[in-house]
Amino acid sequence: MTVCKTAWAEGASGKEAAAPGGALQLGELSELLGYCLKRAQLKIYEDFLCCVAPLQLTPAQFSVLLLLDRNPGRNQSEIANTLGILRPNFVAMIDGLESRELCTRLRSTNDRRSHILALTDKGRAVLARAKKLIASKHEARLNELLGPANRAALLTMLTKITEEF
Amino acid sequence: MTVCKTAWAEGASGKEAAAPGGALQLGELSELLGYCLKRAQLKIYEDFLCCVAPLQLTPAQFSVLLLLDRNPGRNQSEIANTLGILRPNFVAMIDGLESRELCTRLRSTNDRRSHILALTDKGRAVLARAKKLIASKHEARLNELLGPANRAALLTMLTKITEEF
Repeated sequence: MTVCKTAWAEGASGKEAAAPGGALQLGELSELLGYCLKRAQLKIYEDFLCCVAPLQLTPAQFSVLLLLDRNPGRNQSEIANTLGILRPNFVAMIDGLESRELCTRLRSTNDRRSHILALTDKGRAVLARAKKLIASKHEARLNELLGPANRAALLTMLTKITEEF
Repeated sequence: MTVCKTAWAEGASGKEAAAPGGALQLGELSELLGYCLKRAQLKIYEDFLCCVAPLQLTPAQFSVLLLLDRNPGRNQSEIANTLGILRPNFVAMIDGLESRELCTRLRSTNDRRSHILALTDKGRAVLARAKKLIASKHEARLNELLGPANRAALLTMLTKITEEF
């Protein structure tokens, strides 16, 4: 993948380490689904960040913009719960998006304690650009690497784990 | 899966949210490999934490114990780099494991700035118990959910992404 170092918390790749005593034995780790999922996910997220670097969006921010676009009139809790993001983290993320004028909070007319989230025109434009970058770079290369049939099989298995495990 | 709430940062499940206006549309998210990987990985990690709850081990701590067992005489940087854990996070994790007497730091005789990590007898015993719990509960149920052939195909694709993407 393109070299693009980011502040992604655990994104440092082990392969770059020149171990004086040679590569370490991973043992059972290389057969552990959770470990392999985490490593693959970090690799994909690193590439995602590279691809949308001109727009400065994290995968989580992109997900929020996408949900807001698809689900107008929903409140903070609904969006946060759907994405499985804890409230304090979500509030901080929305603060950031709002300060960049990508979304706005509106007080709900039904429940004054609740905030409806809405995309701004700028947010919509950034989302459209992000979608194009992701489709033409990130997803296109993943498709090339795995092949469309394998990619579809992978998605099916991941969804099964998320919904049924 | 077993209900077992943990302090796992982003582990809250979206499915628990009773959205007043009905379920939200995920749109393109449900086709985005990175998003689906993350959700599946959180589900697997939640279950992992449940399964080894009696031993109070996170997936990352388990990985460290396993690598130490497999690779005696290696230093902190080698273990951290292999697992892709950033140095400050890794040092804090080793502090925790050391305070529980699961591993020890020994100053390297070759390089006085370097610390060799070693499992203690207690660490070895905890690792052995963790491996049994993971194999008999966590991995056994994943195998049952996916089937051995699909599980193997999933591992192959994840490894391909990690190594080649």
